[in-house]
Amino acid sequence: MPDWFIGELRKVFDKSSVLTDTDIEPRYYHDLAGQPVDKPRAVVRPRTTEQVSAFLRLCHRERVPVATQGGMTGLVRGALPNSSEIVLSMERMNAVEEVDTLAGTAVAQAGAPLQKIHEKVEQEGYMFPIDLGARGSCTIGGNISTNAGGNRVIRYGMTRDLILGLEVVTADGIVLQGLRKHIKNNTGIDLKQLFIGSEGILGVVTRAALRIFPAPAERQVALCAVPSFPQVTSFLRMARKHLGGELTAFELMWNEYYRLTVERVKGVIGPLPTHYPFYVLVEASGDHVDRIHADQEKLLEAAIVENLIVDATLSNTNASAEAMWRIRDSSGELARTFRYAARISFDVSLAIDRMDEYTRAIGASIKTIDTSAFLIVFGHVGDGNLHLDVHHENTPTKGEDLERLVYQITGDFDGSISAEHGIGILKRPYLKISRTQEEIETMRMLKRAFDPNHILNPGRIFTM
Amino acid sequence: MPDWFIGELRKVFDKSSVLTDTDIEPRYYHDLAGQPVDKPRAVVRPRTTEQVSAFLRLCHRERVPVATQGGMTGLVRGALPNSSEIVLSMERMNAVEEVDTLAGTAVAQAGAPLQKIHEKVEQEGYMFPIDLGARGSCTIGGNISTNAGGNRVIRYGMTRDLILGLEVVTADGIVLQGLRKHIKNNTGIDLKQLFIGSEGILGVVTRAALRIFPAPAERQVALCAVPSFPQVTSFLRMARKHLGGELTAFELMWNEYYRLTVERVKGVIGPLPTHYPFYVLVEASGDHVDRIHADQEKLLEAAIVENLIVDATLSNTNASAEAMWRIRDSSGELARTFRYAARISFDVSLAIDRMDEYTRAIGASIKTIDTSAFLIVFGHVGDGNLHLDVHHENTPTKGEDLERLVYQITGDFDGSISAEHGIGILKRPYLKISRTQEEIETMRMLKRAFDPNHILNPGRIFTM
Repeated sequence: MPDWFIGELRKVFDKSSVLTDTDIEPRYYHDLAGQPVDKPRAVVRPRTTEQVSAFLRLCHRERVPVATQGGMTGLVRGALPNSSEIVLSMERMNAVEEVDTLAGTAVAQAGAPLQKIHEKVEQEGYMFPIDLGARGSCTIGGNISTNAGGNRVIRYGMTRDLILGLEVVTADGIVLQGLRKHIKNNTGIDLKQLFIGSEGILGVVTRAALRIFPAPAERQVALCAVPSFPQVTSFLRMARKHLGGELTAFELMWNEYYRLTVERVKGVIGPLPTHYPFYVLVEASGDHVDRIHADQEKLLEAAIVENLIVDATLSNTNASAEAMWRIRDSSGELARTFRYAARISFDVSLAIDRMDEYTRAIGASIKTIDTSAFLIVFGHVGDGNLHLDVHHENTPTKGEDLERLVYQITGDFDGSISAEHGIGILKRPYLKISRTQEEIETMRMLKRAFDPNHILNPGRIFTM
Repeated sequence: MPDWFIGELRKVFDKSSVLTDTDIEPRYYHDLAGQPVDKPRAVVRPRTTEQVSAFLRLCHRERVPVATQGGMTGLVRGALPNSSEIVLSMERMNAVEEVDTLAGTAVAQAGAPLQKIHEKVEQEGYMFPIDLGARGSCTIGGNISTNAGGNRVIRYGMTRDLILGLEVVTADGIVLQGLRKHIKNNTGIDLKQLFIGSEGILGVVTRAALRIFPAPAERQVALCAVPSFPQVTSFLRMARKHLGGELTAFELMWNEYYRLTVERVKGVIGPLPTHYPFYVLVEASGDHVDRIHADQEKLLEAAIVENLIVDATLSNTNASAEAMWRIRDSSGELARTFRYAARISFDVSLAIDRMDEYTRAIGASIKTIDTSAFLIVFGHVGDGNLHLDVHHENTPTKGEDLERLVYQITGDFDGSISAEHGIGILKRPYLKISRTQEEIETMRMLKRAFDPNHILNPGRIFTM
């Protein structure tokens, strides 16, 4: 970066929009564990799409690398800058600009926190279905760039399925104005798809048109204890059959997850004993309150009769439903009760009928490296997605060996190395397990076409 | 194309795979009205992905243009060849290779007819939700290349939403092996999205992994007469509220569509009188037979009480449900009862609350060109998608003027010029109404990157 570059930025932006040196607060360059990474050269905080465009045009011309930041809740180190990069923070483009209940659409700026969108939409009796534990901090721009999943994919799909249109600024500052609200719009190549889930390497999302849905009058949650994995899959099939379109979550927790969360996370109360092998959280939603209750009760009765579940509790108030969700949503807090350096997180997709065998294989193999290593497993089993945390307290230096081992087994099971977290920097060495060489070369070709000077999140997903 | 090129093809493929001259049957170069276009130089009919790859490698090297063909049911002249092109027919890659009910996936070759996929999946008690009038002829490869919509988008989404993975051959013969079955797979740029809905200009789809769903035990259809458009939108809201996830179709027919179909299409019987302004076909599906019936009846009762509908009939057998669907599915047959040359078809998306004003504006404006011109309108109103046929029997030479007029009004209403049919050759002059210049230039950039010699469906969507 030429020395005069920051001066040039200051000419274009006001003082509060360009931070350098001691004005750069720690949150722009600290990871989730609170550890600092390299301090960026500057932090630029645009207020408008035109400012994003002006900034990128300059960076493109001078080949200055940029790290775009949303809520900094990503899990693959994609938004952490290095010392040669300028941070593009979207935090001041955080408005929810429009909620249209007749059309079933909302428009938000990229930096709008997910929870803010939830609240604005809920005021109108509607819902935006993407929901995840980081809802208070994560932004819709980050959700789009990583194609976030979360708890209700089983009913509403991933972020990709809920985006109607995007406004995007490309690396050279061109604004692709695609903020359209049509559900059906087959007019040539669907460019917005390129910017969803590509982790900011092809362009910067500045605005999004989202699909919203009438909020259901009732959400009822059941927490069920299941004695074995085959019974989990049978129970999932039964829940789909009984609840149909009312089934809005089917979340699985292995014993260790449930037990340790109840034991270690402050404020979490477990309504069931902690000795069962598996725990399933089933959510049913809909407008017929009585029917939702009756359907859930019938499901639980049938599951008990067929010995699929051995214990269960049903929410009878919003507070009790929230308390059950709290268990499932505490994965981050549970992780933070362990030493950061002796823990590796995985987020994999694989065939549901192989999940049991897969987790057993991993549980056994990690012990060949660290005899006291153990697994904490939970996930969105209905979507074929598991989260695994490998804890290796006694061998903190063996992280890479364990990581390689788990990804190798994931490949052997035809799994994907990232279901919803993305690749970023952290999973880049393993991308070839989930993508062929030809696919990775095609991604590089796209990168060259969209960002010939390699300024947008360079080195994320793959190197050039 | 060099003279020796056909000879080269014959060396690589057996005799039945390369057709020339009189061996080329009319179906490869006749449009939907039965009119011939230019005869292609040859028709190549590969049996395997490797053969598609070998063929494209040759064409790429020698810069020979290719027109890829599925079931030839497209409505925008995208698959019709010209005399310099070789037809790549996918008709011999038509196997449904796998149906996995546990995973909820099916794998089909691109040339598999949609109906064949339906039948194979139904044998296992499952369904593939994409459904359209052309089901008997159209292929899944064509459905993917055009991102087909159809009758159940309101519940299951477009083709894009139902594709888990694709195997694609690029212009230079490289096979992108992305036939994966994960619902969640955030591992870099989601390349398959580029080949869905891009009408074959970036690559040739050879195989697809599809999402399938348990077939509902019951599908009940109601046909309802509605006195005005505002009542249609209120009825739609009520249907969504009452039926929730059970609502699998909400199809609207304007009076002219219903009346003329009943009067002119052989074998169609209208269960309601033909004088009502609007007719809505509502389908509810689910596993609880009694509940589906009770919910539909309650919906109709409530709609009658609130004066949203003035007449209705409910299917009590599969045959009566099929008879009602037959009315909605007869748009092609209805069109063929009129002179082809004096009819223009439109497929637009726009805000639901502006549809009434829009159709009135078009109905009035076409009369400024042809005083006896009239409109036939129907569509997937729940998805914001209308089909309009403009008939101008007395001014067959005014087609272009009328077309320009309708698209101009569509632009004025912020509509999309293609909801589900695509652009092809036919709508190319109007693409700029629905896409900005920057978007079209970005599409051109992608075309150059993926197909530098411009051999794949050249001139479709845009020119280079």
